[in-house]
Amino acid sequence: MESSSKYLQNAVDALSSLPGIGRKTAMRLALHILNRSEEEVADFANAVAEMKAHIQFCKKCFNLSDGELCAVCSSPKRDRNMLCVVEDIRDIIAIEATHQYFGRYHVLGGVISPMDGIGPSDLHIEELLVRVKDENITEILMALSTTLEGDTTSYYLSKRLSEFGITLTTIARGVSVGDNLEYADEITLGKSIVHRVPYETSINSQN
Amino acid sequence: MESSSKYLQNAVDALSSLPGIGRKTAMRLALHILNRSEEEVADFANAVAEMKAHIQFCKKCFNLSDGELCAVCSSPKRDRNMLCVVEDIRDIIAIEATHQYFGRYHVLGGVISPMDGIGPSDLHIEELLVRVKDENITEILMALSTTLEGDTTSYYLSKRLSEFGITLTTIARGVSVGDNLEYADEITLGKSIVHRVPYETSINSQN
Repeated sequence: MESSSKYLQNAVDALSSLPGIGRKTAMRLALHILNRSEEEVADFANAVAEMKAHIQFCKKCFNLSDGELCAVCSSPKRDRNMLCVVEDIRDIIAIEATHQYFGRYHVLGGVISPMDGIGPSDLHIEELLVRVKDENITEILMALSTTLEGDTTSYYLSKRLSEFGITLTTIARGVSVGDNLEYADEITLGKSIVHRVPYETSINSQN
Repeated sequence: MESSSKYLQNAVDALSSLPGIGRKTAMRLALHILNRSEEEVADFANAVAEMKAHIQFCKKCFNLSDGELCAVCSSPKRDRNMLCVVEDIRDIIAIEATHQYFGRYHVLGGVISPMDGIGPSDLHIEELLVRVKDENITEILMALSTTLEGDTTSYYLSKRLSEFGITLTTIARGVSVGDNLEYADEITLGKSIVHRVPYETSINSQN
């Protein structure tokens, strides 16, 4: 996939360094970008460069932020006594999109994974304990992946947090809304039976 | 897919403007870029911006080029009497990768497509005729798509070029190397029978 222009080659190299983008796709993207106006291309390059230059991590919850505190932490409308613990910034975006959570967040920056050499000290767990002590937290919702690593991390957190006498919850596991029962895997279906909810509750929470 | 940072949002908007990249993928790419060093991100942004700033079209063949003439046109090693007519710059890259073509190129910039409002005057056809007159061309290889539009364009070119008395060829259509006969479509298989080649020739050209 050699081209006659070294500038094109450099752009293709840069684009194909992104995850999931091979050299053919990178070439297609580069030629697409070449067809735009100079101004549009400058805007594109600036958007990427400025993101790196200006974004910082919220010093409270480690969410991405344009200032010292992120939009969630600095909002007076959010419940200050509830924290949702997530693995990653993307999880916050997914949860915010539901419009069903009104507390604040705490980003761990990963999950405990001995295979990858990630222990509790590599995550923002001590900072979480400090927040629990200082911020009068009454409930922590653990929204971690249902994987071995996610479950291990939830378990570790539950042990570390037990002394504070706060309510610990995890997000419900069950059959996806709109899914046929026959296509649900048996563990999920089993959990959805064990953790069944009163019909009235289920009706009221639909939206 | 709203994020708490407008810089992140701008970068996601920019990345998702690329063809085939949706907002979720763009977010994944943006977060990946965020994890790189400042220098790496600056290199990335520069590679894209510099491509647009420096690339020009070869004034002879309309290939992408870092100077007035592209690497192929300015190479003394390429056959100056043979031209390969292609639709797009990507076709040149594909043909160069075969190491089987030693002449020069002419990029049409598309194919004749009345449905899309593209007529002969929107393509670099007049420039091709000028080259045929001026450059002592003896053979033109038409390497266009086997679509209605590609075939129409080849036919149009053959009419316009007939007066020059040069050899007009098109690339061979046939069963792909490594393909099972049973999976080849019948038109391709039919063409491969009509345009069968002597066994000796076929052996010698294998590589």
